[in-house]
Amino acid sequence: MATVTIGNSEFDRDTAVVRRAPGRYDTHLSAGWTIVHAVNGGYLLALIGRALADALPHPDPFTITAHYLTASAPGPAVVRTDTVRTGRTLSTATASLTQLREDGTEVERMRVIATYGDLDALPDDVRTTAKPPAIPPYEHCPGPDSAPGGRPPGVGSTALMDRLDLRLDPATCGWAVGAPSGKGEMRGWFGLADGRAPDALSLLLAVDALPPTAFEMGLSGWVPTVELTAHIRHRPAPGPLRVGITTRNLAGGFLEEDAEVWDSADRLVAQARQLARVGS
Amino acid sequence: MATVTIGNSEFDRDTAVVRRAPGRYDTHLSAGWTIVHAVNGGYLLALIGRALADALPHPDPFTITAHYLTASAPGPAVVRTDTVRTGRTLSTATASLTQLREDGTEVERMRVIATYGDLDALPDDVRTTAKPPAIPPYEHCPGPDSAPGGRPPGVGSTALMDRLDLRLDPATCGWAVGAPSGKGEMRGWFGLADGRAPDALSLLLAVDALPPTAFEMGLSGWVPTVELTAHIRHRPAPGPLRVGITTRNLAGGFLEEDAEVWDSADRLVAQARQLARVGS
Repeated sequence: MATVTIGNSEFDRDTAVVRRAPGRYDTHLSAGWTIVHAVNGGYLLALIGRALADALPHPDPFTITAHYLTASAPGPAVVRTDTVRTGRTLSTATASLTQLREDGTEVERMRVIATYGDLDALPDDVRTTAKPPAIPPYEHCPGPDSAPGGRPPGVGSTALMDRLDLRLDPATCGWAVGAPSGKGEMRGWFGLADGRAPDALSLLLAVDALPPTAFEMGLSGWVPTVELTAHIRHRPAPGPLRVGITTRNLAGGFLEEDAEVWDSADRLVAQARQLARVGS
Repeated sequence: MATVTIGNSEFDRDTAVVRRAPGRYDTHLSAGWTIVHAVNGGYLLALIGRALADALPHPDPFTITAHYLTASAPGPAVVRTDTVRTGRTLSTATASLTQLREDGTEVERMRVIATYGDLDALPDDVRTTAKPPAIPPYEHCPGPDSAPGGRPPGVGSTALMDRLDLRLDPATCGWAVGAPSGKGEMRGWFGLADGRAPDALSLLLAVDALPPTAFEMGLSGWVPTVELTAHIRHRPAPGPLRVGITTRNLAGGFLEEDAEVWDSADRLVAQARQLARVGS
């Protein structure tokens, strides 16, 4: 494991944004965070989240919603932010991610709204009935290269998997060997491959980094996110995260996917839900 | 039960918007949908949802997110919409609700982003593992006037309760008689008092109309919504709705409240989650 730190890692370099003017940031979408042809939605959300943290007086995304309009491509992109309201403890802004088409016209990829605060300023009270997902120990969960015959289809060709240290619970890996459980559940350990510790921004990646629950439901098509909302509830402690995602309602060609992220101190650090479209 | 119809009911009249220009709607926030001093957030969302349905080529909110910036007051208000993208099956827009302060300056109440589609165009497939909330029959659930000694504090003074036919599961009513269960759960039957049938817009009210789960957790303060996201998944059948709301994680002065709404045909018609702030 490399000795990287927050601020000096693949994730930090590849989500960097450069402020060109108030509310305008230049960036480069890295080909390293793609799934087959598409740039991962959680990576894009973290990148926009970084621009918003710069634009707003508060550092942490308490609640952030993204609508995915068109598929992003690796290459140059622009984030524009617009502050809606700044308060003492919370501030709200919108953001837009755009790229240029080959003909030079602009196309919008994502529209975001978020309310930021300071996780360190929150009181320490916890009254939770939520339980961490039951995942076997890290060393008993297979990585993407553990499947017999190498990486299964839909994983093998994703650059994203080289950025992550993702270890799925074997009980939710049936899809990878052609035997999906039929249940809308996926669980696993989540880390960054270079050992970078988690923070509020990398949680925005963690909530959308597992293979889709649809795989375990026996669907093999693409499951594009229409909208994703994440609540960051606590600054994560160092160490691997546990992520559980569940789908309860697949209907009318859409499904919801709920994500929970737990840190090494057994704190529920993020809750997210996305509405996704079931491909053919 | 009055013979009202969709389009001719208290809910329709009080959420009406008048287009003054493309993307600009005048409206009046009715004092009939207040909880103590504040206008109900679900009512406001339905009103903005109606403006967006007019502005966009698609009729139904598939996913809609609202950030509640400042507390709305009964009286005149303006909704401005801005179309982000229109596609064949989905279209996306933002909206803003503003009012005038006494000094004539404008103050923003809510900022919204939504993606609309056509619920009638969806295929009929359903693969859901979600189960309707276990609620006793309608006639065994008390209305707001059934509590010994009349309406409990926090309900008695809310005009909203006169607009609704809300019947709470007795198992989640302990708070009303000073004996909260301690569990973050509330369940009940939901209808409009004048008998108006549910539709996609009234579902936006239904997801935020029950007393807060915080009451059953023994908290008595105000629980203002920071952000609410609702997914409308199916057009509701006529008849009373069942609504279940749950909170699993109360921590750091915030809680999430998840809502599920089921129609009389046992379809999961709406899923929502809000991030709320725990008052003192």
